[in-house]
Amino acid sequence: MFENKGRTEIEQLGEFGLIDHLTKHIEIKNKTSVKGIGDDAAVLNFEGKKTLISTDLLLEGIHFDLAYMPLKHLGYKAIQVNLSDIYAMNGTASQVTVAIGLSSKFPLEAVEELYQGMTIACEKYGVDLIGGDTSSSKQGLIIGITSIGYADEKDICYRDGAQEGDLLCVSGDLGGAYIGLQLLEREKNIFLENPNIQPDLEGKDYIVERQLKPEARKDIVEVLKLMKIKPTSMIDISDGLSSEILHICKQSKKGCNLYEEKIPIDPMTYDTARDFGIDPTVCALNGGEDYELLFTIKQSDFEKIKNNPDISIIGHITEAAAGCNLISKAGIVHEIKAQGWTSLKSN
Amino acid sequence: MFENKGRTEIEQLGEFGLIDHLTKHIEIKNKTSVKGIGDDAAVLNFEGKKTLISTDLLLEGIHFDLAYMPLKHLGYKAIQVNLSDIYAMNGTASQVTVAIGLSSKFPLEAVEELYQGMTIACEKYGVDLIGGDTSSSKQGLIIGITSIGYADEKDICYRDGAQEGDLLCVSGDLGGAYIGLQLLEREKNIFLENPNIQPDLEGKDYIVERQLKPEARKDIVEVLKLMKIKPTSMIDISDGLSSEILHICKQSKKGCNLYEEKIPIDPMTYDTARDFGIDPTVCALNGGEDYELLFTIKQSDFEKIKNNPDISIIGHITEAAAGCNLISKAGIVHEIKAQGWTSLKSN
Repeated sequence: MFENKGRTEIEQLGEFGLIDHLTKHIEIKNKTSVKGIGDDAAVLNFEGKKTLISTDLLLEGIHFDLAYMPLKHLGYKAIQVNLSDIYAMNGTASQVTVAIGLSSKFPLEAVEELYQGMTIACEKYGVDLIGGDTSSSKQGLIIGITSIGYADEKDICYRDGAQEGDLLCVSGDLGGAYIGLQLLEREKNIFLENPNIQPDLEGKDYIVERQLKPEARKDIVEVLKLMKIKPTSMIDISDGLSSEILHICKQSKKGCNLYEEKIPIDPMTYDTARDFGIDPTVCALNGGEDYELLFTIKQSDFEKIKNNPDISIIGHITEAAAGCNLISKAGIVHEIKAQGWTSLKSN
Repeated sequence: MFENKGRTEIEQLGEFGLIDHLTKHIEIKNKTSVKGIGDDAAVLNFEGKKTLISTDLLLEGIHFDLAYMPLKHLGYKAIQVNLSDIYAMNGTASQVTVAIGLSSKFPLEAVEELYQGMTIACEKYGVDLIGGDTSSSKQGLIIGITSIGYADEKDICYRDGAQEGDLLCVSGDLGGAYIGLQLLEREKNIFLENPNIQPDLEGKDYIVERQLKPEARKDIVEVLKLMKIKPTSMIDISDGLSSEILHICKQSKKGCNLYEEKIPIDPMTYDTARDFGIDPTVCALNGGEDYELLFTIKQSDFEKIKNNPDISIIGHITEAAAGCNLISKAGIVHEIKAQGWTSLKSN
């Protein structure tokens, strides 16, 4: 579960000792962060810009399984997942707060690893950790992250701006995080049945990494800005492509045509899904946790985007009455249905 | 645990159905809230003001016990506790986000009660609920709240601004929330031993309410503004007077003299503490959860404040070398020690 570096009980430090220990190396770097950790609230300065706020809760046994999720990766992922929401508004992420609940099974060394992953993510994405809360928990590990960012009002992309004729685009490739999870679950079950068998993840780095160490697409937001494209709507893919497309169509009061053959799926995702007897398209549509960006752009922006290897055009927006349709490789039209992330059904 | 209104399983609604159901009546009222629930992030506008952010995590079995905490009160308290941090910066609270983890023991009706309490608190304090996250949980109820507010830079009160000679002030009275908790715990234990015995809280409304339904001191922030007093430092009392005084002294690099006889304690708190064989002063110093404001003001502001029945002057700030001292009623000098909130030790 965590690397073996000895075991220091958190009780020895107490709450304030723990907070001091974990936060003493944290530096404030953004000029928008006026005051970080150490007071009742953090103080931020977004003069002239709009403030963006998003909150996520990650619970042990629901959102992550420490049997195969190293704590450093978990810390990294927890930050990514939340920054992704700020990028999905076409904003700049600048701060995070971190609330952690810890049961007594976690020694200080474990919490340090979690924080290390968070700190690496914050540094990589240029985000300040400005505050939080630390508590004991009876329920294992609980992580609550609030991410904060900013944008000029004219740049903000909502979910409700898609117009008829707009092109439906997605960054990166889809389904990898889901099939990576299936692989990790299988190896965990084999290990539980026979602890002498080591996990066989040989050659599966890409999809395992998609699950354990996703990257929020800050780069896509920057590339769009460079290309002078403002998406008419945008959302991040946390719950699977189907669910996110329906959010955009519902809020924009539009329909869409999505072409199965255009959905970007990595060959390793494709082959591993086949090995598991799962349709790769289903992984992309309903899998979730890819943290890619789904967005719509005007047709007039087509020339700017068409040669970008990191962006795929997967369909277009139609009038609401036409419905939300998936056109299969065989040319059959299916209605897109919400599947969504199953975290509410898992208990 | 919650009023009997039938039982609707949350699974029937699904995550998005639950969010829609709970949030459909939520209206945005503050002009600083540009966009609330329904996108990847909320959008806020604090043009010309600084943004204040604070996060708290409340966990079942650690921070609250549903045996005596009605869910509506819990929702109300969860919001209060967090707004209190914004007021402690001398700011105006304007928004909250709410992240909730729910185990399957909670039907929809229970979550509705929790939300009802939150909504009542938001309305009373003029705060918009602008977003959040909802998830299943394997064990019990998890509540993560982030509160957001704003202030002019010149008005913000940090913990580190106390100066030698400043008067140490506190709002309201202290120790009530702690002794209220002792009373509720006693009645719970009697009930567990003999379920036929009903709780005897007769005439104890005030201290029970201090525990179950605290009020963040927005009114004190407003009164100070009216009196043209800017505290030189301020903090809210969540962990007990001792702990908070030490925060101010440590961060301001100062000492203090605190006079036991000046600490405001309500007669019911005093008498009930005596009944329990607890020193009432200890309840005030180490009890926590009073959510009053502790602040320092310049001596020149004494005349403005001296007749305010809701503010007590309990001591003064000294040079650091003099240490942090409690002068007892008998005139004996004790060093003030951090006790702090025990939520990290309870597991």
